[in-house]
Amino acid sequence: MERYLEKAKVLTEALPYIQRFHGKTIVIKYGGSAMREEALRRHFAQDIVLMKFVGLRPVVVHGGGPQIGAALKRLGKETRFVGGMRVTDAETMEVVEMVLSGKLNKDLVHLINSQGGKAIGLSGKDGNLIEARKMVRSAGEEGEEDLGYVGEVAKVNAEILKDMDRGVYIPVVAPVGVGRDGKTYNINADLVASRLAVALNADKLILLTDVTGILDGSGDLVSSIRMSDLEGLLVREEVTGGMIPKVRCCYEAVSRGVRKAHIIDGRVEHSVLLEVFTDGGVGTEICRD
Amino acid sequence: MERYLEKAKVLTEALPYIQRFHGKTIVIKYGGSAMREEALRRHFAQDIVLMKFVGLRPVVVHGGGPQIGAALKRLGKETRFVGGMRVTDAETMEVVEMVLSGKLNKDLVHLINSQGGKAIGLSGKDGNLIEARKMVRSAGEEGEEDLGYVGEVAKVNAEILKDMDRGVYIPVVAPVGVGRDGKTYNINADLVASRLAVALNADKLILLTDVTGILDGSGDLVSSIRMSDLEGLLVREEVTGGMIPKVRCCYEAVSRGVRKAHIIDGRVEHSVLLEVFTDGGVGTEICRD
Amino acid sequence: MERYLEKAKVLTEALPYIQRFHGKTIVIKYGGSAMREEALRRHFAQDIVLMKFVGLRPVVVHGGGPQIGAALKRLGKETRFVGGMRVTDAETMEVVEMVLSGKLNKDLVHLINSQGGKAIGLSGKDGNLIEARKMVRSAGEEGEEDLGYVGEVAKVNAEILKDMDRGVYIPVVAPVGVGRDGKTYNINADLVASRLAVALNADKLILLTDVTGILDGSGDLVSSIRMSDLEGLLVREEVTGGMIPKVRCCYEAVSRGVRKAHIIDGRVEHSVLLEVFTDGGVGTEICRD
Amino acid sequence: MERYLEKAKVLTEALPYIQRFHGKTIVIKYGGSAMREEALRRHFAQDIVLMKFVGLRPVVVHGGGPQIGAALKRLGKETRFVGGMRVTDAETMEVVEMVLSGKLNKDLVHLINSQGGKAIGLSGKDGNLIEARKMVRSAGEEGEEDLGYVGEVAKVNAEILKDMDRGVYIPVVAPVGVGRDGKTYNINADLVASRLAVALNADKLILLTDVTGILDGSGDLVSSIRMSDLEGLLVREEVTGGMIPKVRCCYEAVSRGVRKAHIIDGRVEHSVLLEVFTDGGVGTEICRD
Amino acid sequence: MERYLEKAKVLTEALPYIQRFHGKTIVIKYGGSAMREEALRRHFAQDIVLMKFVGLRPVVVHGGGPQIGAALKRLGKETRFVGGMRVTDAETMEVVEMVLSGKLNKDLVHLINSQGGKAIGLSGKDGNLIEARKMVRSAGEEGEEDLGYVGEVAKVNAEILKDMDRGVYIPVVAPVGVGRDGKTYNINADLVASRLAVALNADKLILLTDVTGILDGSGDLVSSIRMSDLEGLLVREEVTGGMIPKVRCCYEAVSRGVRKAHIIDGRVEHSVLLEVFTDGGVGTEICRD
Amino acid sequence: MERYLEKAKVLTEALPYIQRFHGKTIVIKYGGSAMREEALRRHFAQDIVLMKFVGLRPVVVHGGGPQIGAALKRLGKETRFVGGMRVTDAETMEVVEMVLSGKLNKDLVHLINSQGGKAIGLSGKDGNLIEARKMVRSAGEEGEEDLGYVGEVAKVNAEILKDMDRGVYIPVVAPVGVGRDGKTYNINADLVASRLAVALNADKLILLTDVTGILDGSGDLVSSIRMSDLEGLLVREEVTGGMIPKVRCCYEAVSRGVRKAHIIDGRVEHSVLLEVFTDGGVGTEICRD
Repeated sequence: MERYLEKAKVLTEALPYIQRFHGKTIVIKYGGSAMREEALRRHFAQDIVLMKFVGLRPVVVHGGGPQIGAALKRLGKETRFVGGMRVTDAETMEVVEMVLSGKLNKDLVHLINSQGGKAIGLSGKDGNLIEARKMVRSAGEEGEEDLGYVGEVAKVNAEILKDMDRGVYIPVVAPVGVGRDGKTYNINADLVASRLAVALNADKLILLTDVTGILDGSGDLVSSIRMSDLEGLLVREEVTGGMIPKVRCCYEAVSRGVRKAHIIDGRVEHSVLLEVFTDGGVGTEICRD
Repeated sequence: MERYLEKAKVLTEALPYIQRFHGKTIVIKYGGSAMREEALRRHFAQDIVLMKFVGLRPVVVHGGGPQIGAALKRLGKETRFVGGMRVTDAETMEVVEMVLSGKLNKDLVHLINSQGGKAIGLSGKDGNLIEARKMVRSAGEEGEEDLGYVGEVAKVNAEILKDMDRGVYIPVVAPVGVGRDGKTYNINADLVASRLAVALNADKLILLTDVTGILDGSGDLVSSIRMSDLEGLLVREEVTGGMIPKVRCCYEAVSRGVRKAHIIDGRVEHSVLLEVFTDGGVGTEICRD
Repeated sequence: MERYLEKAKVLTEALPYIQRFHGKTIVIKYGGSAMREEALRRHFAQDIVLMKFVGLRPVVVHGGGPQIGAALKRLGKETRFVGGMRVTDAETMEVVEMVLSGKLNKDLVHLINSQGGKAIGLSGKDGNLIEARKMVRSAGEEGEEDLGYVGEVAKVNAEILKDMDRGVYIPVVAPVGVGRDGKTYNINADLVASRLAVALNADKLILLTDVTGILDGSGDLVSSIRMSDLEGLLVREEVTGGMIPKVRCCYEAVSRGVRKAHIIDGRVEHSVLLEVFTDGGVGTEICRD
Repeated sequence: MERYLEKAKVLTEALPYIQRFHGKTIVIKYGGSAMREEALRRHFAQDIVLMKFVGLRPVVVHGGGPQIGAALKRLGKETRFVGGMRVTDAETMEVVEMVLSGKLNKDLVHLINSQGGKAIGLSGKDGNLIEARKMVRSAGEEGEEDLGYVGEVAKVNAEILKDMDRGVYIPVVAPVGVGRDGKTYNINADLVASRLAVALNADKLILLTDVTGILDGSGDLVSSIRMSDLEGLLVREEVTGGMIPKVRCCYEAVSRGVRKAHIIDGRVEHSVLLEVFTDGGVGTEICRD
Repeated sequence: MERYLEKAKVLTEALPYIQRFHGKTIVIKYGGSAMREEALRRHFAQDIVLMKFVGLRPVVVHGGGPQIGAALKRLGKETRFVGGMRVTDAETMEVVEMVLSGKLNKDLVHLINSQGGKAIGLSGKDGNLIEARKMVRSAGEEGEEDLGYVGEVAKVNAEILKDMDRGVYIPVVAPVGVGRDGKTYNINADLVASRLAVALNADKLILLTDVTGILDGSGDLVSSIRMSDLEGLLVREEVTGGMIPKVRCCYEAVSRGVRKAHIIDGRVEHSVLLEVFTDGGVGTEICRD
Repeated sequence: MERYLEKAKVLTEALPYIQRFHGKTIVIKYGGSAMREEALRRHFAQDIVLMKFVGLRPVVVHGGGPQIGAALKRLGKETRFVGGMRVTDAETMEVVEMVLSGKLNKDLVHLINSQGGKAIGLSGKDGNLIEARKMVRSAGEEGEEDLGYVGEVAKVNAEILKDMDRGVYIPVVAPVGVGRDGKTYNINADLVASRLAVALNADKLILLTDVTGILDGSGDLVSSIRMSDLEGLLVREEVTGGMIPKVRCCYEAVSRGVRKAHIIDGRVEHSVLLEVFTDGGVGTEICRD
């Protein structure tokens, strides 16, 4: 009985969070360990389904770097990385799309459905969701090499997402878009999540990563930071490496209307749920000044 | 962190229950200690608000015997009980109605609202919700004394409740009805809850009591019992005293379409939530054969 | 036949009024003799139901001073009045609320229903309709005595009324509200009616009184007066006594968007209907400049 | 004041009728003196607009015999009548349609609009409302002469009427239909009204005539008659002349689901309103057994 | 097979036009040969029905000069024309209305219905669609003679058209309106079409004529012309005769928000369809600068 | 001009077909040459978009055998066929799904969008559209070899399709489903199309093939055949080879409520459009007795 009582208390503690986020859209970038480890995967799916059932509107964007690498390897196709981005020729792009839209997207859809949700998998092609353009690299960025079919988000046509997430469906988006040239482009999933969050006027953008969050100069976790301080961090180059583009995605989202952005540790079980339904956040929260 | 993780697990454990009861109506008779003790009162309100937010449709019916007694005493008005029922003359009925519809009902409405809900208090007069008739007592039932304005439910006009509970409102009902004779009647709250559950085709009827549930011959708690076995209990007179009418209300509800009825211990904190969202029920469940 | 023809003519004479007020909200403060005398009560209920059926949206706010006084007397509880307002301690407030929300409100609901309407009784607690605050009395106002639980309207949350009066229901409101301090306050019913009229952007505010209307210096009835002239009356102190707060309620309502306010004689049978459906107004009409 | 009070009483006396017919469809055949005399015309239009505003759904079907006759005369076109029906050749039919759909229908529409209604004029051609067929005359009926374009109702497509009368519009129907042969037919307006009443599942069919109603053998007005008694009247040939087809239209309507049919005296001012809103009916009412 | 393939190609060639005009309102003035010749009439009706079915919202306004003339002649009623307009006394107006609203309008409704559409015939009286006023003629315009019941559009109440054309119905409008004086006026059909196009914010106004379009100084067809160039044509008096008012109607419509206006040759089979669904326009198109 | 006139005629000839199929669902299995050749592909997409725009509800199911074969070859993975079906181990299934859901499905979505449609790609996993089960092969069917992940349709949950095709979206379905065992199965696309047609109560099922249709004993095309005659063909084994399962899919669909099924020649340009919008069908039509 004691045990159950404890449970009831936890449920009612979640009440203020459930009230606060009722009807709100939350865009989650899914990737890293949370996408690979069986238990974390299942917990993530439960978190998403629970959010939907208690009245939130989760939208999931997934990445897929490692799985793409493995598939290319199996095909005997080598890839090179320039500035952290994969040089993507037409043949590579074909594999990238198949892995993202045909395997990872559908696996995630099935995973969410098996936990009782009604997920629907979309790529940026469906309903013209994401119009892409070739990524333009500023001169001086590690050579001038052409990255091929690496794209940026040119425009988001969010109607299809709105139709979905207002109803019973949980949209799951693969980060692929089409350009005006009719070509398919692979786009960084953090970037897609950030842009969708803006287009949907989301309440939260959550990026699942494999780090604990933003660290300050002394290596300590920054649990909450305002936009103006974040600029300082970037200017002083205290944020480095792969964290830079993530921080930029968050910055962009919050400066264009998303209420809060979070970089959280996907290696922690139920990290999404913890972030949304308790005050024990698991990473760094970026909010307005 | 550990602590939070524990919470996340509890939340996801509630997921199957949330899914099962999504959009379902649950009628709860509120009374006893849960209506008197401050902490239990607040927990009850939290439970109701949480149920509403995660997609269920709770309808609350409250009693008020002790508070009515106190008010009558203050007015220097004595009352007698016959067969457990208060002999209710016109003057008494006026006090009864004022206490039920004017005090207890509004207190509960406010309590729920203060926890973030949107409650609306109704008596059987509002929108003609409950048509009453004078209770007919079978001869031999402890004398033939006229009980006055003690009533039964003649008819339920549930449109007003449906209009409410489909939307954002949580209906809170005082057990008062009007007869064809234009007179106001006090009706037993368990009875009202049972009849509303039937009229709303509810999924559950929950009666909060100050006992642990139905006990069997050896005084052990019966945690689950089928309709046919319940008949046996009644026939063998193993159920006694105040429990008899409660058991009859449950029996009536389940036999007319309510999926399950529960007699639970309102002295346990969050007992309603435990009953609905965990498998640790706190009382007796009555289900179909 | 002649008789019937006369009736038909009367009905068609009402046509322009029915057209003019179609779909319009009309807030009526109900009180005085119209609330006490049997025939006047029934006629009032008929008027309200008729208005609803022919397409208007009546909202009724009732007072209850005399009835409260009687109940307090019965309880052996004396009350004092300061500046026309009852000094209301906690115990008194409990009685006030029970009489207003539990007796008068439900009686009126039943009365309207018995004439074929679908009334629903609300207090300011239901759906958080009226947020109250303790009335602040300017220094110099007959001593500095604390009036206790006498309140003002801090905020109106009119959604619940809109949900009701757009549909088939006739809302009947008891003038009780809750403060941020969680305490219950009694508010003057004229004041509540005025504020609800503003919040609902009503077409008319009608205050039923036991006088013929506003009288001018020579004691003659002012049948229509503009806002600017009303200011003059107040400045010149030609309006006196209990009429002052009523005039202020009307002034406030019209200056905040209500098209017209009326102070009418509730002792006249069907006075509300006469006001709305004929050009034979029965009191004083206050309109914009 | 006395005068106004009288008015208020009349209005509230109409309340039970307004309640009873709320949302009900009433089909009225308009013709005779009520269509020719200025005052009667205006009163009729007021009656219809009033009915619409207080929540009923009036549908008007008009005739036009005399006006058609006048127009034909002006054109120097003679017509013969056989068994009360005009022998209608192609040229005559053209005039008939122009007078009905182009003059009388639009005049009536304008008349109703000028009283504050929103009428919309339809012929049986609009939205395919009335599919006609050539009237078949049983042998022996005064010769075998071909009546030309005199039709019967083959089928009613009532969607267009339903779309109209559920909204703000008052449909006004000219008794003209098209056959499968693509020809236009003139149909008796009583017949059209009867068939529309059946198709709309109307609550009432009202035929305005220039007589006081059905008279019994001794020439007294029959104010109410049941279906079975009506059969008797017909069998015993107590109903004669032009009244026979009217009685048949009523009989047909009531036997196919219309609640009541009325043959009333259109020479009485506001006769429609009297019939619907008072208990002083002005003619004969035909009801089910 | 070849033949069918050709057909399929034609259908797909129409696709871009169907997409472009999806949900758009197109107002068509119908008159001239297209209204008289059997084959052209049927083709016109087919065009309208097709437009409706593939998602456009056609609204048809018809004229009727020649048919009116014939009817007047038959009645032995002479008419004179002043400045191209018929001098219309009360008796003439009665005939005009009967021919327009009672014959031509209903014929066209039936014609469209016989091709599978659901047309509904309206005059400016229905739902108060067109409020008219007596046409004011500037002094010097060929004498000062009073034209009688020749009107202009004072106001358009387009709700009724919007209610129709959003649904399944195709509105067919006779150019007749009522003035504030309660009199009926005949209005030029081009003018009515132009004003309805403005009121409906139409995408296109199409005037069917019996000429090939606007001709330039050398007598060549101007297939497309901008507003500013059109002004030049009018100023230089290169447009003459009956074309002047038509050009003015187009000018007025485009300058008040209609995207394009067209003066096309109604003697060409399916000219409306050609204009809308192919790039082979058949006349002159007037567009914004 | 002549040329355009011809076009207009073709468009109006399509009118009866557009009317007949308005709002009807048509399920099309897409495959073969129509899926490989550039011009045929574009024409197919135009056909689908046109159908959607003129009010039909097309649902597309695509196959992908050859493309799967090519992908497997590129991966150096051999496959064997048993009874016309690919033996599909887990690794093969992964490639099959990626090619179907990640490449062909998204290519087709993009193709349709580039023609102005709004396609949305789904696999049987999305919204749990297709529940699969392992195909059971009757003993004796060419050995007993296990085919691995070759599936059948166990259940269709068509809500997601209905939500889509009632709106602006054109659903494009990849023939992949999930079993109760959580495994992914490849299902024959003809079979999926047939089952979706039944679940959607489609008006037509169209199978695009690379043959002219069903041939009779003498090798002549059967352009139309009734169900009972089709049974005869099957019994007499006049239908052979790859045509057998196609014929069975059609038979199954029509016997379970689909109005007609068609096996048409996808090598003919615009064959779908020809089938639906002209009377020049291009293959065999199977209809009820």
